Amino acid sequence: MAVTVVGSIAYDRVKTPFGERERMLGGAAVHFALAASFFDEVRVVGPVGDDFGEAELAILRTRGTSTDDVEHVSGGRTFFWHGEYGWDLNSRETHDTQLGVFEHFEPKLSEPSRAADVLFLANIQPDIQRQVREQSGARFVALDSMNLWIEIARDSLMKTISQVDCVILNDAELRQLTEKPNLVQAARALMAMGPSVVVAKQGEYGAALITAEEFFALPAYPLETVVDPTGAGDTFAGGFVGYLARHADDLHDGATLRRAMAYGTALASFNVEEFGTERVARLQADEVSARVADLQRITHFEDAPIELRA
Amino acid sequence: MAVTVVGSIAYDRVKTPFGERERMLGGAAVHFALAASFFDEVRVVGPVGDDFGEAELAILRTRGTSTDDVEHVSGGRTFFWHGEYGWDLNSRETHDTQLGVFEHFEPKLSEPSRAADVLFLANIQPDIQRQVREQSGARFVALDSMNLWIEIARDSLMKTISQVDCVILNDAELRQLTEKPNLVQAARALMAMGPSVVVAKQGEYGAALITAEEFFALPAYPLETVVDPTGAGDTFAGGFVGYLARHADDLHDGATLRRAMAYGTALASFNVEEFGTERVARLQADEVSARVADLQRITHFEDAPIELRA
Repeated sequence: MAVTVVGSIAYDRVKTPFGERERMLGGAAVHFALAASFFDEVRVVGPVGDDFGEAELAILRTRGTSTDDVEHVSGGRTFFWHGEYGWDLNSRETHDTQLGVFEHFEPKLSEPSRAADVLFLANIQPDIQRQVREQSGARFVALDSMNLWIEIARDSLMKTISQVDCVILNDAELRQLTEKPNLVQAARALMAMGPSVVVAKQGEYGAALITAEEFFALPAYPLETVVDPTGAGDTFAGGFVGYLARHADDLHDGATLRRAMAYGTALASFNVEEFGTERVARLQADEVSARVADLQRITHFEDAPIELRA
Repeated sequence: MAVTVVGSIAYDRVKTPFGERERMLGGAAVHFALAASFFDEVRVVGPVGDDFGEAELAILRTRGTSTDDVEHVSGGRTFFWHGEYGWDLNSRETHDTQLGVFEHFEPKLSEPSRAADVLFLANIQPDIQRQVREQSGARFVALDSMNLWIEIARDSLMKTISQVDCVILNDAELRQLTEKPNLVQAARALMAMGPSVVVAKQGEYGAALITAEEFFALPAYPLETVVDPTGAGDTFAGGFVGYLARHADDLHDGATLRRAMAYGTALASFNVEEFGTERVARLQADEVSARVADLQRITHFEDAPIELRA
C-alpha cells in the first residue's frame, strides 16, 4: 500500500483577521501527509534547506510518515510563502514567495516511494510533477495545481494531467483551465484528456466529485470559528487520497469515492480551526470519525410522498 | 392553508452569454408563485401597470394562483428591470430599474390573502414588507431582501426581520447584514433578533438551512446548461415556502424543513435552464419529484467501519 506525495515543504508567514504567525511549518506535502497518515503510510518527497528544523521534521513524521525522501539541500533555504487573508477569509494576497531549494529541485524517488500504490502530485511545477509520475509505479495518481501554472505552463500541465487518474482543483482553477464556466462541462473536458475522477474544491462551500458515472457534492463542515484556511485544500486532498490508498482495490467504487470525500472534508475542517498544522498535528482518530458522522447527518434528507398540484 | 406572496410583478430585459430577452415576464412574486403553486394555493399581492398583458396574467395564474390582489394601477407602468450576466453567470450588472407602479405602492390585502397560513415577503422595500406583515394573520412568515435595502433602509429591514419567522438571503447579504463573515455566526445573529429559521442561498453551490437545532446543507442540482439565473432565488423560495405551507402543522420539524430545501433546490434548477419563467411555467409535477430523488442520490453517502492510524 502506502501513498507517496511530492510537493512543497515550507515555512509560511501568514496573517488572518484572527492572528498571525511569523514562521510556521507549512507546504502542500506537509498538510497532505498529516491528513493522509490517518489512513496509510505516507512517504514525502521534497527538498528542504539548512534552516529546516528537527522540530518541524518531527511534526512531518506524525503517524509514521517517512521522510527518507526529504532531500536536505546543503546551503539552501526552505521554500517560504508569505500571505494575508481578507475579512471573510475568501480572498488572500500573496506578499512574497521564495522558491529556495525548489528552484533547482530534481526529484529522485527511492524504491519504496516508487512502489507505493498511490501517488499525489501536490501543486508544483508540472514538469516536476511529470518527472515524479514517470518514476512511480502507482496504480492511482492524483494531481493538484494552481492558477500560476495554468497561466505560465499550460501545455506542460495539460500533458501531466493526461498522465493521471484524478484531478483535484479549486473550481475557479477548473474553469480557468478548461475555459468552461460550467462545472459539469469543465469536468467532462478534463476526463476527455485521461483522468477518470475530477474533484472540484469549493472552499467554504465544500467539494464536488465527478466521474463518468457519479456526481456527488458535499458541503464543508459548518464551523463557527475559522482561523486560517492555509493548507485546507491539501488537507482535504490528504484525507481524500489517503482514504483511497487504504481502499486501493475499490478505487472505482462510487461508495468508496464518496466516503473519501467525507474524510477529506472532515480533515480539512480541523485544519482551518487553528494556524497551519497546529490542529491536525494533534488531531485524534475519534475526532475525525465523529465529524464524518456529523457530515452524514447534516447532509441527509429523505423525501416523503406528496401529491404535487397540476 | 394557502400562501400569500407580496413582491414585484415585472418585465425583465435580460442578456446572458446564451441569449437575451427584450421584455419577458419576471419579478420575485411571479417566480415565487410559479414554484409555490405546486404545493398549495398561492395568492399574489402586487401592482401592475397598463402595459401588463393578459398573456402574462395567464402565466401568473398557472396551477390556480389567485391574482385577485394584483392591483391594476391605471395610467401606471409595470416594474421593469434590465440586467446582464457575465461569462460564468456569477456576476451580474443592473443597467436599469424602473419602479413604475411600485413607487407609490400601498399594499391592501383582501380577506383571503390575510387569512393564508403562510406569508412570503419577497424582496421589496422593508416598510412595505412590514405593512403587509401587519395585515396578515399568517402563522409562518418568511422574508427575502437585497443589498440595496441593507444599505439604504437598514433599520427598517431590521425591524421587519424581527417580525418574521424565517429569513431567506444570499450568503453575501447575510454577511453584509450581520457584519459577520462566518455563516453560522451570521445566522445566530439573525435568530437572536426573532426568526427561528435562516436559509442562506449560495447560488451555484446550493443552500444551507440553520435553526437552533439544525444545520443542513444541500448542493445545487448539477446542470450542464444554465441559461439564465434570473429568478432562481425566488423560485427556490417558492419551493421552500410552498412546501412548508403544505405542511403547516410540521413547520418546526427538521425533516420537513430539509425536504422543503430539496423541493426549493429542485425547482430552482429548472428555472435557470431557460429564460425567465419559460421552463417553470410548463414544468410537470413528475419532473420535480424526479429531481428531488436525484438530489437525494447525489448527496448520499454512508460511512463504513475503518480503523484510523494513531
